[in-house]
Amino acid sequence: MSHKGLLVILCGPSGVGKGTILNKAMHKNKNIRLSVSATTRSPRSGEEEAVNYYFKSIRDFKKMIEKDELVEWVEYCGNYYGTPKRHIEDLLGQGYDVVLEIEVEGAARIKNKYPEVVSVFVLPPTFEELRTRLAGRGTEDSEVIEKRIERARQEIEHADKYDYIIINDDIDEAADKLNCILQAEKLTVERNKHILEEIGF
Amino acid sequence: MSHKGLLVILCGPSGVGKGTILNKAMHKNKNIRLSVSATTRSPRSGEEEAVNYYFKSIRDFKKMIEKDELVEWVEYCGNYYGTPKRHIEDLLGQGYDVVLEIEVEGAARIKNKYPEVVSVFVLPPTFEELRTRLAGRGTEDSEVIEKRIERARQEIEHADKYDYIIINDDIDEAADKLNCILQAEKLTVERNKHILEEIGF
Repeated sequence: MSHKGLLVILCGPSGVGKGTILNKAMHKNKNIRLSVSATTRSPRSGEEEAVNYYFKSIRDFKKMIEKDELVEWVEYCGNYYGTPKRHIEDLLGQGYDVVLEIEVEGAARIKNKYPEVVSVFVLPPTFEELRTRLAGRGTEDSEVIEKRIERARQEIEHADKYDYIIINDDIDEAADKLNCILQAEKLTVERNKHILEEIGF
Repeated sequence: MSHKGLLVILCGPSGVGKGTILNKAMHKNKNIRLSVSATTRSPRSGEEEAVNYYFKSIRDFKKMIEKDELVEWVEYCGNYYGTPKRHIEDLLGQGYDVVLEIEVEGAARIKNKYPEVVSVFVLPPTFEELRTRLAGRGTEDSEVIEKRIERARQEIEHADKYDYIIINDDIDEAADKLNCILQAEKLTVERNKHILEEIGF
């Protein structure tokens, strides 16, 4: 992994602002690439095929599972989500840092398969703030919102299994923190043992 | 440690540019404080008491050792160097990140006493570059330079015991890297378990 890019999991409850943080971070750091997930859920307004998701029918998604083309997949609120394997390995091989914005179960599976992964959990400043954000998005009905709030509680219980925690009380700062984490991880001794050999001492 | 500042070891061979990196890093990050070491060596031109070092006679230095007032001390090239205990613990308690610019043996002792310490090893881009820098400083005679070069080789063999490696091929970048390491370390789950309780989930 030392000469390749970093594989990064960005996790956290729905509505916490993972996507916004990532967009800001990518604006400042051109070495980040998003892993584009496959999903069976319907596109939201403005979402594009192969940019936000690979939108799949349930039948096609199940074919990908059968052919072992997904690093992980999960069923969540009635829809399937998964991470296409070749896509992320190509990007890592090209030296990009690949960020997976992913649910808790998927994250756990990625960590098992790629122990060198860097895992970051995003928290809202308070739980009430998260509730406000989820209600304010206005793209889901109240039943879905309540489901997500309950789920958020469960997800946050797993936050202590991640490497890093970012509290999203300021998008700009949160994006800078994410970029710092990537920078620092590239400086760890574990990822740089080859340098001690190459440098010619 | 979670609510206090970070204790940071900055290590690396003499002449690699630790002091210059630190000055740059402190210019951008007002939360860093240097640990001021005690030493029996003579002040170099421009060095100030209690800023660069606490300059001590050998007799006074030995008294500090007897009274257990030093976190660590070492004899190096005929002089004593040590880290006053109360000084760093006061700064950490005030929330500052305290950086110790320190030799390899001292670093090992600090790591034993403070396992939560963040350790950073600074490498020159090449060994030849280090030789040029040591010769170019012009403050030491050639015998001292040769001693330091031999010592540098021995020190660099320990680089893989540190948490992070910074290659000093550009002072500005090296300073930014150091600041990123401090930022990222403050986001690790180990240093933030209290947040998961305080945030009220």
